[in-house]
Amino acid sequence: MVVIIDQTKLPNEVVWVELKNTSDVASAIKEMKVRGAPLIGVTAAYGLGLVAFHSKSEKREDLLKELEKAAEVLRKTRPTAVNLFWAIDRVMKRARETSGGKEELAEAVVAEARRMADEDVEVNRKMGKFGAQLIEDGDTVLTHCNAGSLATVDYGTALGVVRAALEEGKNVKVIASETRPKLQGARLTCYELMRDGIPVTLITDTMVGYVMSKGLVDKVVVGADRVVRDAVLNKIGTYNVAVLAMEHGIPFYVAAPTSTMDSSRTSEEAVIEERSPIEVTNVRSERIAPEGVKVLNPAFDITPLEYVDAVITEKGILYPEVLLKFAEK
Amino acid sequence: MVVIIDQTKLPNEVVWVELKNTSDVASAIKEMKVRGAPLIGVTAAYGLGLVAFHSKSEKREDLLKELEKAAEVLRKTRPTAVNLFWAIDRVMKRARETSGGKEELAEAVVAEARRMADEDVEVNRKMGKFGAQLIEDGDTVLTHCNAGSLATVDYGTALGVVRAALEEGKNVKVIASETRPKLQGARLTCYELMRDGIPVTLITDTMVGYVMSKGLVDKVVVGADRVVRDAVLNKIGTYNVAVLAMEHGIPFYVAAPTSTMDSSRTSEEAVIEERSPIEVTNVRSERIAPEGVKVLNPAFDITPLEYVDAVITEKGILYPEVLLKFAEK
Repeated sequence: MVVIIDQTKLPNEVVWVELKNTSDVASAIKEMKVRGAPLIGVTAAYGLGLVAFHSKSEKREDLLKELEKAAEVLRKTRPTAVNLFWAIDRVMKRARETSGGKEELAEAVVAEARRMADEDVEVNRKMGKFGAQLIEDGDTVLTHCNAGSLATVDYGTALGVVRAALEEGKNVKVIASETRPKLQGARLTCYELMRDGIPVTLITDTMVGYVMSKGLVDKVVVGADRVVRDAVLNKIGTYNVAVLAMEHGIPFYVAAPTSTMDSSRTSEEAVIEERSPIEVTNVRSERIAPEGVKVLNPAFDITPLEYVDAVITEKGILYPEVLLKFAEK
Repeated sequence: MVVIIDQTKLPNEVVWVELKNTSDVASAIKEMKVRGAPLIGVTAAYGLGLVAFHSKSEKREDLLKELEKAAEVLRKTRPTAVNLFWAIDRVMKRARETSGGKEELAEAVVAEARRMADEDVEVNRKMGKFGAQLIEDGDTVLTHCNAGSLATVDYGTALGVVRAALEEGKNVKVIASETRPKLQGARLTCYELMRDGIPVTLITDTMVGYVMSKGLVDKVVVGADRVVRDAVLNKIGTYNVAVLAMEHGIPFYVAAPTSTMDSSRTSEEAVIEERSPIEVTNVRSERIAPEGVKVLNPAFDITPLEYVDAVITEKGILYPEVLLKFAEK
């Protein structure tokens, strides 16, 4: 059994949910009860772990077939965050390469999922250390959406950079943009920073330019759902923030583990998930637009690398020169 | 008695509210039951009209004192939209300049308020005609907040331009950004355009850059709360839209009657209203952020004239060269 916090209920309620099988895991990802590229990846890995753990197959080949089937279901949950596919591929590769019978295979799959969860925290801490070099004492960091402990197994990517800077004794404050339609900034980033005693100020997405023009923002740090050869795909509204940051000469950093990198694609080849209109016409149970209004609801946008000052990874900081090489691959 | 639509209830309910005295009028403006610079101005004028109409004073001087007192109350409702002050000043000037006794004075004040309501529609239609020259057949116009019939007595400023273009037989579509925190785009712009059969697509504010980058926007037209010597003060988020429009080479137009112009001030001298945190932490009755979170809530932002391609007024279109002269005054 895998236990998650239902993030759609935060910050009003902290509700723990038990995921018992592939279908539970797939629904939790689709409905954004778990979200954030790294957490989606690890949750999917545990989804395969659940199959292996509960399997009644007696033969290795039968379990492998079960896993392949579950992998197909999990792959279809959300199209944009590449960590989902990376995590599924990694577990399946491990399964196929494990010798022995059904038991050995099942153990290997569960162990791999556990290893990925542990690694995620380690990767975030490394990323945080590198990223903290870019943060100065007294900085106010604007972040969009939630790339924190709630988007990962723990510690966070963008917020991991903030945490690492604080651990080094630097004073750092955060401005969180609320991130409509799903309000991850208001609901999740504010929640986890307040819980940890990190100073945070909430703004609506319409205030990003205003706070920058008033000199209230020193750096922008965001996460990523997929870094392709020429761009960063991240939560809708990231591109607005990037353009505004450049206009105000504010450094724009992306914190993303190498598992988020996809050098096989350009932004034109990446899929942007279009979600239900109800996310735009309603805020939770409140209807805020006329019945029947036409709506767009892309969940992600594309920030060309020219707007990105650096990508912070667990292996080091990639500056424009290197990013460009990545783009030319 | 003055009857208004309570715009805070739209689009879910159409509720008509009776305003019987200065205090009713002041509350309706403060609580944004009426909003939009031109409509605030005319409503305040009617607020003075109510005082004149119901006054039990017998002497001209006593009525003038009553009016001065009401004017003081109305002036304190909202600080940014200059039309409020313009309208109050105009009615008070008319009152002081009217000869005769109390009756003549009262009649003049009521007549002036009515004249201003009529003029507003006329001004919007003239502005629309000028603005329509800038709109081409097939254009999609992005607008922020609501500068439509609900922000004016009728027809609208920014949406008046769209209406005039449609009346000329041009095909025009609108993209409305929802405009957090008060959601005037989602609630009011979508409502009035759908009511009038004008094609509209709703997006969240985070999607502005995305729709521009996808080539879905041909022009931006917004209203204004105050055009000062160096900038346009308008609903928070306007500046985001302006910077993004410039980045994508999309013309950014401001539709504003000359009553919105304030050549006596620069943007540094203008007051930006800071409203209650609850507008950010809640969407109507839904709480969307943790209790006690720190919040900013400026109701307006400042778009420097360098981002503005033209200001559309009832007297003609002011292009950058002229705007610059306005700035140098």
